[in-house]
Amino acid sequence: MTYCVAITVNTGIVLASDSRTNAGVDQLSTYNKMHQLLANGERMITLLSAGNLATTQAVVRRLNHDLNTNGPRNIKALGTLAEIAEYVGEISVAEQSKHSASSEVGFKPEASFILAGQIKNQPHQIYLVYPEGNYIRAASRVPYLQIGELKYGKPILDRIVEPDLDLETAARCALVSMDSTMRSNLSVGPPVDLLIYKTDSCTSGDHYALDEDDDYLRQLRLAWQNQLKEAFAKLPRLPSREPRMRLLDKPGDR
Amino acid sequence: MTYCVAITVNTGIVLASDSRTNAGVDQLSTYNKMHQLLANGERMITLLSAGNLATTQAVVRRLNHDLNTNGPRNIKALGTLAEIAEYVGEISVAEQSKHSASSEVGFKPEASFILAGQIKNQPHQIYLVYPEGNYIRAASRVPYLQIGELKYGKPILDRIVEPDLDLETAARCALVSMDSTMRSNLSVGPPVDLLIYKTDSCTSGDHYALDEDDDYLRQLRLAWQNQLKEAFAKLPRLPSREPRMRLLDKPGDR
Repeated sequence: MTYCVAITVNTGIVLASDSRTNAGVDQLSTYNKMHQLLANGERMITLLSAGNLATTQAVVRRLNHDLNTNGPRNIKALGTLAEIAEYVGEISVAEQSKHSASSEVGFKPEASFILAGQIKNQPHQIYLVYPEGNYIRAASRVPYLQIGELKYGKPILDRIVEPDLDLETAARCALVSMDSTMRSNLSVGPPVDLLIYKTDSCTSGDHYALDEDDDYLRQLRLAWQNQLKEAFAKLPRLPSREPRMRLLDKPGDR
Repeated sequence: MTYCVAITVNTGIVLASDSRTNAGVDQLSTYNKMHQLLANGERMITLLSAGNLATTQAVVRRLNHDLNTNGPRNIKALGTLAEIAEYVGEISVAEQSKHSASSEVGFKPEASFILAGQIKNQPHQIYLVYPEGNYIRAASRVPYLQIGELKYGKPILDRIVEPDLDLETAARCALVSMDSTMRSNLSVGPPVDLLIYKTDSCTSGDHYALDEDDDYLRQLRLAWQNQLKEAFAKLPRLPSREPRMRLLDKPGDR
């Protein structure tokens, strides 16, 4: 599986992705799921990918091809991020449909993408492109998007993320969300790619590749484990009171 | 959806379940998913259920019927909890198969169960009975089981639950796990049923039905929210260091 998260705050965008890919437990491998496609001072376009690896690689290849050959539609030519999201969705559907006739049981060509970026003089934005090719923008009140194995790492995002977080805090929150996911699901694993993009720069941003034995990642993991245990220990105790039986099914026999 | 969790510690068992049931967003209702079937000083048998409501109700009805009519196999007569888990699995499969011929798209008769209990002079145990009728016992090192919408509430269990927790702490952990799930998934909701069973009592244990506006549940939710924010604020900051670009795909154009 995969876990990718994108957080957009007032001052920019934070992206994080894991690197574990598996086709069955014996075909475990490491693939980059963060693809920076453009960063030229005029626009920054980065894609996070989850799902079928052949599909996601084909989509990235096609996007790069259209860009390098100056195709009629490409990520440098299209006018808005929404149009680019639409274009990514169409390419994704086209790639998936090439293999949808397969009768292999369990074969799924589906892929999901997060498109993150900025076009000069426009706001920075993040979009989620579904396997069906349609897409959504992050809500303004809870401004994050996830793809892949998203549930384990969602509670911390729901509690911390808001539009006026600074970029460092948003990055820390993305890493904690990633850590919770890696702890509860073996198929999500390091190295973790982290990208911090400052709004209006339209450059590549700061990229960190955090390996399993990265000092900061280990410190963060340990600190979060300890802090969570302390936080839990401080919770109010269940008060002693009369248990109530009214909702519980009556035992068949006592 | 549903979320049920069972934690077994050295001194007993804690069970928690939500009460929201939906068949589409406009058929939201409240049903009890905790079914205490027997508590007579000789044995305590409680079932948590998730999945198709018609199936889970049919299974509980059938178990009660076999018990009350003294059927050849029933939860008072079978010798071990493992045999009872096997018997619950068989009934579940039989009930599901009655409706498996339905051609209704999206119709799923599947149901999962957690069987928790104790037979006098035997250890207390918890079992997970899959829709296929097979079953597992909780691992001794991470002694909890979940059914339903389980991923949101798993990280806190992975960090806190261990066999030598006291029952109150285990109950608090179950409620925090439930709270994280309810916060991230609207289809899981109060009232929350909580059962605390002391080992070797073979009686019904202490049952709490915690409504949405329950004082303790509100205190716990607020305290956990604040503690988590504090814990997060204490995490080490991302150190300033040279960003590394080696793993990121090269932009097609700079």
